[in-house]
Amino acid sequence: MEDLYKGCLKASKELFNLIHTPMDESFYLYEGIGAGGDRSSKIDLMAEEIYVTHLKPFGKIVSEESGEIGEGEFSIILDPIDGSDNLLSRFPYFGSSVAVKKGDETLFSFIVNLANGDYFVKYENCYKKGSLTTGRTKDVRLNRHSKVGLFEKAYANPDMVEELKKESLKFRSPGAVALSLAYAPYVKFVLFKGPLRAYDIEAGLHQCQTLFVFKNQDSIIVSKERDIFERVKKILRV
Amino acid sequence: MEDLYKGCLKASKELFNLIHTPMDESFYLYEGIGAGGDRSSKIDLMAEEIYVTHLKPFGKIVSEESGEIGEGEFSIILDPIDGSDNLLSRFPYFGSSVAVKKGDETLFSFIVNLANGDYFVKYENCYKKGSLTTGRTKDVRLNRHSKVGLFEKAYANPDMVEELKKESLKFRSPGAVALSLAYAPYVKFVLFKGPLRAYDIEAGLHQCQTLFVFKNQDSIIVSKERDIFERVKKILRV
Repeated sequence: MEDLYKGCLKASKELFNLIHTPMDESFYLYEGIGAGGDRSSKIDLMAEEIYVTHLKPFGKIVSEESGEIGEGEFSIILDPIDGSDNLLSRFPYFGSSVAVKKGDETLFSFIVNLANGDYFVKYENCYKKGSLTTGRTKDVRLNRHSKVGLFEKAYANPDMVEELKKESLKFRSPGAVALSLAYAPYVKFVLFKGPLRAYDIEAGLHQCQTLFVFKNQDSIIVSKERDIFERVKKILRV
Repeated sequence: MEDLYKGCLKASKELFNLIHTPMDESFYLYEGIGAGGDRSSKIDLMAEEIYVTHLKPFGKIVSEESGEIGEGEFSIILDPIDGSDNLLSRFPYFGSSVAVKKGDETLFSFIVNLANGDYFVKYENCYKKGSLTTGRTKDVRLNRHSKVGLFEKAYANPDMVEELKKESLKFRSPGAVALSLAYAPYVKFVLFKGPLRAYDIEAGLHQCQTLFVFKNQDSIIVSKERDIFERVKKILRV
């Protein structure tokens, strides 16, 4: 697991540096449709290539862009760019997520914010937040001062925006699901409503295991606070 | 103006370093009500102190936390922490904004993203994006690949979320107004609906001068694209 962590760090640093040096305009253009059904830009494909190079030794990679690559005892669920539309819009909230599974069990997860270099890694007894830029790491602790929740896909769910307003639950809607799940220990709640794909959520759900979590076929609710969790569940009528 | 730019850089670097080293829990607690009517945390007050130290030589400071400080030919409209609720929630989208006015005319603006070190500065013929961490700067250019708009205060306006959905205008709602206006050249549109305060918008509007801009007593629409601008105006019925 330690080596997997190092591989993720190497790959994400390489990608972080690539993204933060001036890029040719062609990097932003679409090049085809990925295995996940979304269009892939050149950056998506280059990001995948970087992760595949560093993670291939550890198992079979299941990626949003290319589907399955290689084989092995472990399955590595990879979203090379979580929040592609944000990256293309130069809106600073996008990242990568990596979940490693053996059978049905997730053993390792790594989620990195490529806009600022924050990353979150969890395996065995390790659950840390680190920074690609400073190299510092610290244990993830619940934040007792959170004021806002994160509602992914608010733009597609005006009725739920209405319900949250009635309940005075203030939210942000930033547009990168794995990343938002990674920040769950810090914010009031995370709510996702829309089609769920393994690439988007496996790593995030692994990191949220110790929080209150609800999941059905098209929604996720996470909160560190039971009261908030129950209120959001009521809104979703689940 | 060059010296003002240097002052803003010094202050924002000092604040960036403060925020990104481990902070005492007490920094997150509220200490009173600011001149803008919001509660001020210790971080808000320390941030103001840092800017006041570096910018006082240049004119009268009008700040969200303390009101007017000092005097001079120029008015310096300061929001030490734009997106305080995000900072307290450790959600990485918060910054500072500085606008310098002589009478009614804004001559200078500086907006910094304290979550990742991006900053935007505009005065005379200079309009640059820079990075506090790498020291690199480049001219701000319109982004031709934007996929999403930014809708500030979506949580308070479910009816407009509904209208944007009907128009298939995808948005994010990140929660720091000055910062979102700074990113306007990159995204599809910026929409703000709620009470307008000088601290929040003076610097941002100065940076958006060359884009399509609508403003009335409680809303702002900005876009680099005329077609999108008109569609959002229609939604707002203005």
